[in-house]
Amino acid sequence: MEEKIKGVNLGAWLVLEKWMTPRLFDRTPSTDEYYLAHDMDPAAYEEKIKTHRATFITEGDFVKIAAAGFNVVRIPVPHFIFGDREPFIGCIDELDRAFNWARAYGLKVLIDLHTAPYSQNAFDNGGISGVCKWAQHPEEVEFVLDVLTRLAERYKDDSALFGIEVLNEPLTPEMWDIIDPQDQFEPRDQELAEGSGPISFAFLYDFYQEAYDRLRKVLPSDKTIVFHDGFDLMAWEGFFKDRTFDNVMLDTHHYLVFNNEPDQENLEHYKAHLNQIGTQIEKVSQYVPVVTGEWCLFNQHIAQNQPNMTDDEVTSFYNELWGASVDAWNKGDGYFYWTYKLSIDTVNTPDRIGKDAWDVSRAIARGWAQV
Amino acid sequence: MEEKIKGVNLGAWLVLEKWMTPRLFDRTPSTDEYYLAHDMDPAAYEEKIKTHRATFITEGDFVKIAAAGFNVVRIPVPHFIFGDREPFIGCIDELDRAFNWARAYGLKVLIDLHTAPYSQNAFDNGGISGVCKWAQHPEEVEFVLDVLTRLAERYKDDSALFGIEVLNEPLTPEMWDIIDPQDQFEPRDQELAEGSGPISFAFLYDFYQEAYDRLRKVLPSDKTIVFHDGFDLMAWEGFFKDRTFDNVMLDTHHYLVFNNEPDQENLEHYKAHLNQIGTQIEKVSQYVPVVTGEWCLFNQHIAQNQPNMTDDEVTSFYNELWGASVDAWNKGDGYFYWTYKLSIDTVNTPDRIGKDAWDVSRAIARGWAQV
Repeated sequence: MEEKIKGVNLGAWLVLEKWMTPRLFDRTPSTDEYYLAHDMDPAAYEEKIKTHRATFITEGDFVKIAAAGFNVVRIPVPHFIFGDREPFIGCIDELDRAFNWARAYGLKVLIDLHTAPYSQNAFDNGGISGVCKWAQHPEEVEFVLDVLTRLAERYKDDSALFGIEVLNEPLTPEMWDIIDPQDQFEPRDQELAEGSGPISFAFLYDFYQEAYDRLRKVLPSDKTIVFHDGFDLMAWEGFFKDRTFDNVMLDTHHYLVFNNEPDQENLEHYKAHLNQIGTQIEKVSQYVPVVTGEWCLFNQHIAQNQPNMTDDEVTSFYNELWGASVDAWNKGDGYFYWTYKLSIDTVNTPDRIGKDAWDVSRAIARGWAQV
Repeated sequence: MEEKIKGVNLGAWLVLEKWMTPRLFDRTPSTDEYYLAHDMDPAAYEEKIKTHRATFITEGDFVKIAAAGFNVVRIPVPHFIFGDREPFIGCIDELDRAFNWARAYGLKVLIDLHTAPYSQNAFDNGGISGVCKWAQHPEEVEFVLDVLTRLAERYKDDSALFGIEVLNEPLTPEMWDIIDPQDQFEPRDQELAEGSGPISFAFLYDFYQEAYDRLRKVLPSDKTIVFHDGFDLMAWEGFFKDRTFDNVMLDTHHYLVFNNEPDQENLEHYKAHLNQIGTQIEKVSQYVPVVTGEWCLFNQHIAQNQPNMTDDEVTSFYNELWGASVDAWNKGDGYFYWTYKLSIDTVNTPDRIGKDAWDVSRAIARGWAQV
């Protein structure tokens, strides 16, 4: 695209995360989508998941996304999108409808394969908390490559297709140690989690090359193939300089996470941090286009101080943060906000105060963000 | 209120209408909420209805409604709101949450009792299509009065309570003959529908007086008690002049329905028609405050011609229609648009083209409406 990507993720629609739509997990012991599908009676599960999908994102949302000034939507999809992995229920019809909406309202779609069987990161959003063994199962690696190929075949001629991201957030070794996903996302089945570990760069390079080779054969050259950086933006110079790719992009995710260090939870530090990332993005952009595929305004400063701030102070803080963020992302090819909307209720569950900043539809309505 | 009511209905949230959220009726033979609850397995029904309620309207919608400039929401609620009419599932917790959202974002709430057992109008939105026998069942009239009293008791001290509308759209004799509801909304069970007929004005006057007497005892004087006009705005002069009421309001509904008469389906005719209603509203306002509790921009001219109109032409048409409508409603105390949002898909089901005008959230996003 000539202009920068001003994008938004349709999170919590076809891939669930309990913290984003907590009431969807009512009446179950489940904390992730894997167990939601396994814990529930199949008929009740079908009603829950299909009602959610039909209600959470509709044509009207595409109208509003376009009207807000966004130009691309990134749609996280699960590995079971084609409905061939029981007890999960497929959602390819939903994606078909979304492409029709995107075309009608002048938006492009980046399909983002967000989960893999046995997970690529052990996060709740990888589908199953605390488990990360996908890369150890060659048949599941092949399954993922096949899902990607089927998605490419299905939408290759659709004018609304921006591209396909081959896998969201594979967790690489250094970040595995820092994030410690099995501590944050405790496995429910220790036996299933046994043997979990990070995705090595060696594996990831091979997987990306293989995915590229298969998709590039199918996709016209104007469709972009996107690789996530595995949370290590500076680890890709050799990969891209040693190989020849046509129309690829590196996706990097940046949230304001500083483990509540008091001297870091303020606007000055956030801006300095964003500026630093912008410099990295600029550098990497010399050998591969870079998009910030996930970020948001949420930060601990507001979460902790909002009840004592005026509305104007909150708005001004977010406006500054938005500007500094977008400046950084525009050192590359642009951004996708995480996320378009979520059902978090800061009024009836006040421990969620501040988390509404993850919801760009509310951020826009409140004047916190201007696309 | 000092300023005019600039209101919006939260239709299709706690009271369902199949045409507004058609996919909610997938996998069932049901065409209304009565049969949805009776046709489905209870566990599956619970998942469907609770997922819909938790997803369709959330805190974020109250943020956006306030940001758009509305000042009151009218919330249609079913007679089974307290959960005492199996197999229906109550939704008083949802209404509690809505009051908390309204307070947080500076909105008022008009509670609108939208259905009665055996229905007051035989419409799909009365709960059971083709049946209208509520007024013939004294114990159900008493049940409704009791539900109203319980609602009043629950919210009487809530600063967000604007008032309570005692019953939506009771269908009076003349309009029964014109609308012919059993033709439009065919009864599924002929035996149950047997004996259905309109609500007489004599009954309605008595019912409104009784409801007023009970609610006025409970509600502080700043809370408004609202009566629907039974689709006959000019039939109420005697009622209000013969009696003394404290803080009541008459609700009148106006849609642009002209049975597709070609010479009537144009902007000039719509404006003349609205002007005429405005004159009536002005007249009736001399003896009772009048609010237009339901109306919308939908019209056959756009539904039939939109594919051949430019976006600018459509926008300009709707802008003129919006202005003429609000001018008419402001001859009284203001309006509530029907409705805030609906899930109709004009892209994937093109026979619905034009029906997106029922959705004021889309109308605002597209520049068709400016509150």
